[in-house]
Amino acid sequence: MSSNAGTIKIVEVGPRDGLQNESKILPPSDRIQLIEKLVDAGLRFLEGGSFVSPKAIPQMENSEQVWEVLSGKIPEEIDLSFLVANEKGLERATKVGVKSIAVFTATSDAFTQKNINRTVMESINDFRPIVKAGKAAGMRVRGYVSTVFGCPYEGRQPIEKIVEVADALLKMGCDEISLGDTIGVAHPRQIKEVLSRLRSVLPMARLAGHFHDTRGMALMNIRAAADEGVRIFDSSVSGLGGCPYAPGSSGNVATEEVVWMLEGFGFHTGVDVEKLLTLGEWLEAKLARPMRGRLFQSKPKLLNYFEA
Amino acid sequence: MSSNAGTIKIVEVGPRDGLQNESKILPPSDRIQLIEKLVDAGLRFLEGGSFVSPKAIPQMENSEQVWEVLSGKIPEEIDLSFLVANEKGLERATKVGVKSIAVFTATSDAFTQKNINRTVMESINDFRPIVKAGKAAGMRVRGYVSTVFGCPYEGRQPIEKIVEVADALLKMGCDEISLGDTIGVAHPRQIKEVLSRLRSVLPMARLAGHFHDTRGMALMNIRAAADEGVRIFDSSVSGLGGCPYAPGSSGNVATEEVVWMLEGFGFHTGVDVEKLLTLGEWLEAKLARPMRGRLFQSKPKLLNYFEA
Repeated sequence: MSSNAGTIKIVEVGPRDGLQNESKILPPSDRIQLIEKLVDAGLRFLEGGSFVSPKAIPQMENSEQVWEVLSGKIPEEIDLSFLVANEKGLERATKVGVKSIAVFTATSDAFTQKNINRTVMESINDFRPIVKAGKAAGMRVRGYVSTVFGCPYEGRQPIEKIVEVADALLKMGCDEISLGDTIGVAHPRQIKEVLSRLRSVLPMARLAGHFHDTRGMALMNIRAAADEGVRIFDSSVSGLGGCPYAPGSSGNVATEEVVWMLEGFGFHTGVDVEKLLTLGEWLEAKLARPMRGRLFQSKPKLLNYFEA
Repeated sequence: MSSNAGTIKIVEVGPRDGLQNESKILPPSDRIQLIEKLVDAGLRFLEGGSFVSPKAIPQMENSEQVWEVLSGKIPEEIDLSFLVANEKGLERATKVGVKSIAVFTATSDAFTQKNINRTVMESINDFRPIVKAGKAAGMRVRGYVSTVFGCPYEGRQPIEKIVEVADALLKMGCDEISLGDTIGVAHPRQIKEVLSRLRSVLPMARLAGHFHDTRGMALMNIRAAADEGVRIFDSSVSGLGGCPYAPGSSGNVATEEVVWMLEGFGFHTGVDVEKLLTLGEWLEAKLARPMRGRLFQSKPKLLNYFEA
């Protein structure tokens, strides 16, 4: 590919957002292997796990071990991030020396009420001391915002609310905000409408797009967001994951499809699609279920039919 | 939706291209019901069946009955088309008074050799008298061209070959040419590259895009083709179908997803997505398998989160 449309940062969320929504629980040793394979495929920004109650999310049990083993093995520049839900989570992260954390809220009060029994603003107030402490300790901090493009309980979300939440997270110190189409209902026209309005009030370089392929529109939505200037996208190898709180949501958009689509347009991601396709086979064996990604299912012998 | 981006003609291929690739065989009475439901959902251009050997394709057995029953019931303006593979097929179509037929070739000699034991040009020469006779009898004639964006045996297809085949079909009298991404490998960049070159030598108003969602790129490819001026797209309700001759190919792009995507951009299709989603449930019962379309699987309560 000779054209160069710029660089896109891919944030691989499979080992956390993906695996926590799988019914089969992988032990830390498997999660470590998965992350090593992802790093080998060129991924530089990854979710490594979460410091939450293992009773609530047994899939992420002993994320300490994931960090402790990997921090001694993977290159220094890899950003391996861990979700923290509260002060206790931050304590656990701090204790083992994690360098990158993430916090999680939404635009919809109905969604956060059902999910964490808090209004959006209550959740933001809860996170403020955590983010400040994390930043003071030299951590990178990412903020996830769910239901940006639609809530299963409230429907359409007002732009003002999206801006208010993203702005609050940035002001408290988050380095990056991931805007989530949690239930996968966004249309590219909507992406354009929302992002063209956010662009005038928020720093685009710090916004990520997080899309689910529920309606098969995730790749188009990513393309539409890239057209509006977004250069960071979350995805999950083989489309691992979903959202347990959101009825009808299916998995995250598949990393290999995002990379194949973007590289085809001349963007540089640094990620090796062939290695991700091989990793899909490993995941099928580990999770004992077929992976849903269409590019993976098609078992491509030849990726690009448009190059000489 | 207040914006108006123009009208798109949707050609519903589920009752032929779709069903002929399903392992469960539906009797003519079910195929008739399917077509009536599609017409009720607003579709005006449909494949009704094919006049081929019932030994080769038992799924299309007694397509005569489909036409005979429906021609007395559906509005005059509905274009219900039947595939004919040879002179015998044309005879059968003529005998029952079919008004619209289709013929089928490819850009790849390796593909037509494996498929119908003919080179591309041999197949075109075979079709010439059929198309001429059909036109002389007042029929509409559609030409399908497979493997335009990639062949499982030959890989990339030269533009010159695509133009040569399409041009030969137009010159012999075909009213419309459907350009098929038979194995679903096209990338939107490739769509742009190929169509921008075809545009200077072929009449765009007579070209249709026929995409398979093998790699999850069909909707993006349709959008890219629309950007190049294509205004006719083939699709299949619930993503019925595939291609039995093409390894790794999955179903046609789902009509309801095409319509939802295009209408969201302000195009007018005249097709009712809600009715197609209901029809998906009917198909699941009839075919005794889950339908793969993601929009269908997501069971949307609310289609558009971007309208006030």
